[in-house]
Amino acid sequence: MAPHVTVYEVGPRDGLQNEAAVLSTPDKLRLIDALAGAGLRSIEATSFVSPRWIPQLADADALSAALPELPGVSYLALVPNARGLERLLAARAGRSLPGRPELRPAVFVSASETHNLRNQNRGVEATLSDIGRVAATAKAEGLALRGYVSTAWGCPFEGAVKPGRVVEIAERLLAAGCYQVSLGDTVGVGTPGQTRALVELALRSAPPEAIALHMHDTRGTALANVLAALDRGIRTFDASIGGLGGCPYAPGASGNLATEDLVYMLQGMGFETGVDLGRLVAAGALAERLVGRRLPGRTLQAERARRTGEA
Amino acid sequence: MAPHVTVYEVGPRDGLQNEAAVLSTPDKLRLIDALAGAGLRSIEATSFVSPRWIPQLADADALSAALPELPGVSYLALVPNARGLERLLAARAGRSLPGRPELRPAVFVSASETHNLRNQNRGVEATLSDIGRVAATAKAEGLALRGYVSTAWGCPFEGAVKPGRVVEIAERLLAAGCYQVSLGDTVGVGTPGQTRALVELALRSAPPEAIALHMHDTRGTALANVLAALDRGIRTFDASIGGLGGCPYAPGASGNLATEDLVYMLQGMGFETGVDLGRLVAAGALAERLVGRRLPGRTLQAERARRTGEA
Repeated sequence: MAPHVTVYEVGPRDGLQNEAAVLSTPDKLRLIDALAGAGLRSIEATSFVSPRWIPQLADADALSAALPELPGVSYLALVPNARGLERLLAARAGRSLPGRPELRPAVFVSASETHNLRNQNRGVEATLSDIGRVAATAKAEGLALRGYVSTAWGCPFEGAVKPGRVVEIAERLLAAGCYQVSLGDTVGVGTPGQTRALVELALRSAPPEAIALHMHDTRGTALANVLAALDRGIRTFDASIGGLGGCPYAPGASGNLATEDLVYMLQGMGFETGVDLGRLVAAGALAERLVGRRLPGRTLQAERARRTGEA
Repeated sequence: MAPHVTVYEVGPRDGLQNEAAVLSTPDKLRLIDALAGAGLRSIEATSFVSPRWIPQLADADALSAALPELPGVSYLALVPNARGLERLLAARAGRSLPGRPELRPAVFVSASETHNLRNQNRGVEATLSDIGRVAATAKAEGLALRGYVSTAWGCPFEGAVKPGRVVEIAERLLAAGCYQVSLGDTVGVGTPGQTRALVELALRSAPPEAIALHMHDTRGTALANVLAALDRGIRTFDASIGGLGGCPYAPGASGNLATEDLVYMLQGMGFETGVDLGRLVAAGALAERLVGRRLPGRTLQAERARRTGEA
């Protein structure tokens, strides 16, 4: 049996959060349905941040209440604090559809103080204490909690970030109760030597299934970093359909690793992902129509061009 | 001392050959000057194919005669046959500038029969015999000869290509007198497992310095394939400034690996390339102005966006 790799699709949250277009709730549900139809089983759907901060995700409550129950599909929603988790629980309770799909909360913190201050208006320690409270409630409610560490390869304000600091924060998220921590290259500066060092350090204190990677393709290195982590036993990667999301600090540049590029490489290497690449590319084309711009995903563009050329 | 990696810049030939815009000879010389100024020391400048086939490179004779002699810089020009090599020799003899920069001929053949028939209007064996004659003349003239094997990861007409066949052809090019053979992923389908297998097979009969890789980034996997080859000791890679060239079989899609993405990753991994990344990005911006379109190189776009954001 081929070894399995789990892909976390973050387009509907991390992707749409950084797009200029604000999609309607039904359009988001169409995209989520297409992603699940392509075989993705872990879909980050929204974020319970204040609508004033991120208007693109202002419908988090309505969207969460309307998420379809699909076989094997789990959704995730970011919760920045205890209030966010309360909203998630209320959305679950007030569902407009029958069934109760799994909706996991996810907590996030930056590895660099300045990025956390700019992103959350508080320091890393303050965020970590709040995560402790969120984790306790999540545990009491029987909810699996995922964690994210941003700026794990570098910070747009502070530059280099020490791997020891990243791993220390990841360990604290795991100790608080997260089943997995996803390390994020928020600004897309990572190169494979750095990735090897970071992953090796993380694996000294955590099993491979507790660590995921969230790479950005800002400088074309995302899949090389994924390869470096695969070689060391990491089997969970985040990606965004079509590369949806751009780069928050660099409008016009590429940001999130495109899900179809990740799946293309994994399938070529003999990993089993459960994803149908053709349907995934179709979901990417839908994402382009919904946001009204051409997305940067390479495989998406290659498939479009190939079909145009054949037609 | 940091380990060295040699980057062959193929933008002025492989890149421009696949652009719709036809650049003037002075504009090509400006681009070549910017590339050399960034520290690139091996620059593929043109091709002595028939101008009827490739109008973008119809000035091969004039351009070759006008290439500036720059410290440490070697140029390469493709020669499809004995006539091409004659033209290269005549261009060297009839130089319009003082000095005689090194202008190396390069021969090429596909690993798949159908691609070679479509590209050269003859079979692989016919091309290989002609290469034997070209190699004999090059040797007599004291010229270092480079070889290329196209469709080494897959063929747009035949699909999968056997690594054994690729290596057999590479061995014949080396036996004919090539100092190095560059294996090309012409359609950008390669994934790292395949790259490892191909490189390992090639290194059974050739030393690492005799093998180079020429990856395309059509599906975002170019740098992951470079990493797989670096891990096995390959130290020479081809790339095209800004990703110049697109994909010949898929207009609109990405083709050649962008030089600045390659250099960014190599520098991040501690390899010494002799290239100044800032000047390389500036050369990419010049390439964009000359061809009149935005190029797909990720680092180029990220740097532009970063500067725009800061401005």
